[in-house]
Amino acid sequence: MHPRLTLAISVMEALALFAYAISGLIEARKRRLDAVGAFMVALATAFGGGTVRDVLLSRRPFYWVQHQEYVVVIFVMAIFAPMLLRMTTRLVDERMLLVADAIGLGLFSISGTSIALDAQMPAFTAVMMGVVTGVFGGVMRDVLCNEVPLILRDSRPYAVCAFAGCWMYLALERFDVDTIYNVLLSTAFILVARLVTFKLDIRLPH
Amino acid sequence: MHPRLTLAISVMEALALFAYAISGLIEARKRRLDAVGAFMVALATAFGGGTVRDVLLSRRPFYWVQHQEYVVVIFVMAIFAPMLLRMTTRLVDERMLLVADAIGLGLFSISGTSIALDAQMPAFTAVMMGVVTGVFGGVMRDVLCNEVPLILRDSRPYAVCAFAGCWMYLALERFDVDTIYNVLLSTAFILVARLVTFKLDIRLPH
Amino acid sequence: MHPRLTLAISVMEALALFAYAISGLIEARKRRLDAVGAFMVALATAFGGGTVRDVLLSRRPFYWVQHQEYVVVIFVMAIFAPMLLRMTTRLVDERMLLVADAIGLGLFSISGTSIALDAQMPAFTAVMMGVVTGVFGGVMRDVLCNEVPLILRDSRPYAVCAFAGCWMYLALERFDVDTIYNVLLSTAFILVARLVTFKLDIRLPH
Repeated sequence: MHPRLTLAISVMEALALFAYAISGLIEARKRRLDAVGAFMVALATAFGGGTVRDVLLSRRPFYWVQHQEYVVVIFVMAIFAPMLLRMTTRLVDERMLLVADAIGLGLFSISGTSIALDAQMPAFTAVMMGVVTGVFGGVMRDVLCNEVPLILRDSRPYAVCAFAGCWMYLALERFDVDTIYNVLLSTAFILVARLVTFKLDIRLPH
Repeated sequence: MHPRLTLAISVMEALALFAYAISGLIEARKRRLDAVGAFMVALATAFGGGTVRDVLLSRRPFYWVQHQEYVVVIFVMAIFAPMLLRMTTRLVDERMLLVADAIGLGLFSISGTSIALDAQMPAFTAVMMGVVTGVFGGVMRDVLCNEVPLILRDSRPYAVCAFAGCWMYLALERFDVDTIYNVLLSTAFILVARLVTFKLDIRLPH
Repeated sequence: MHPRLTLAISVMEALALFAYAISGLIEARKRRLDAVGAFMVALATAFGGGTVRDVLLSRRPFYWVQHQEYVVVIFVMAIFAPMLLRMTTRLVDERMLLVADAIGLGLFSISGTSIALDAQMPAFTAVMMGVVTGVFGGVMRDVLCNEVPLILRDSRPYAVCAFAGCWMYLALERFDVDTIYNVLLSTAFILVARLVTFKLDIRLPH
């Protein structure tokens, strides 16, 4: 793989993880959790999807075992959460968080699908694993915070964008598109689909 | 095994899965979830129990990986949920859903126990695995919908029927009853126990 | 290992399991669950942490498969829960429950860390596994009872005590302290830390 592409993906991954972690911190703040709660909810949001996928696929080691540095960073983020969230709301506007979250949705879903394919899962299962990887962190965040998971009720296409993008990844794979370009293309598709449907306020049947 | 019996069990299984999925769709409707929510809750209700059992027993592949056709059917059911539920309430009365659900409880519990026995689990654990298989889909449905799981509070014998039936299965197994008859007998026992205790409005201590 | 120490640890373990189970029964009572609900919540509280750890570490058999006698005892406790809880509140005052729970927190966290180290986990992961073992039973109890988990919000150092104690265990391990003394020392540290911070009403940042 071209080293610059590898770097680009690593950067996007870090970005996405922190976007997910911050969404956990924001939710924890809303529910008035303490620092431990903020840490756990942020961890669950960032790593929950991939962990559930790996448990389902009997796959080890977990991402957060291999990348302990991210766990430590989220630990520090949770301790300084009040400060961090104030900074975030001042420096970063909501659109930037939305974009980072959409990058995460795209990257995690596509990587989940690709990992499931490597584990010899059939097509439909691989797509479902991708969607689980992308959205399950948010589900765990909301269950811990005692809410009906947002993605099950907000009627905006979120899981649906991931679902479509994962199928696109499978299709391009059949056409022998190089994996790295396929990852980038499919991730970009999910990212754009999420942002466009959000902007146009497109709704799912209810 | 006699092919007609195998067919009978497959038909009952399909019936039970759809009864569970429909109970998920009904709950999703009540909580005003969107189509994605309906799909996920229906999936969790139908496959949750068996999946938890398989994770606990380190057993693969999952039922829903081997039977993707059921996942696709539930997918379609979730998309047409509003229509489907209207049809269901018109064509099928509540008693039929109750019976189908009780068939599911029986069949899933007994198959769970039988699978746990094959995995060399001791007796009490095998029974617990059976009960988990039968009731955990409903627990996941209610947790996702942000409710205290119905089976933990409604004080009707539901898990208790499954529990008794699984012990019956173990006992008949000791007496060398042929597996297929044992499955049918024990499932029938749970089915009847559930319907009779429901009808007589028997309550657990509270 | 000295047989008397082994016995001491077994006794503490039993004490801790029942303290956890009783906290499950109390919560179940508050939420007006039936006997099935009381049993399941008590089981989840007592064995939830260790089970999640074992699933994450791909470790079998589970503790509750090897020690079915504890499951049976909790089963009986759940059936006689109303009587048991009345007796508990009469004979045992709240401080005793607090101490038993703190013993559980210490013992489960340290044993979790030690098991994770045996499974070749890196340091930070081993500590996290210890904390999960100690606190996740309570998280599952509260999620089943449809509450935001207490340890995420009560702002008293609970997980934090376990966290510190697990690091202490790791440090002593590096200094080649004999495992059994290390377990006792680190458990005692968590126990004391929990009781002292509770007594002094020390709070985490919120």
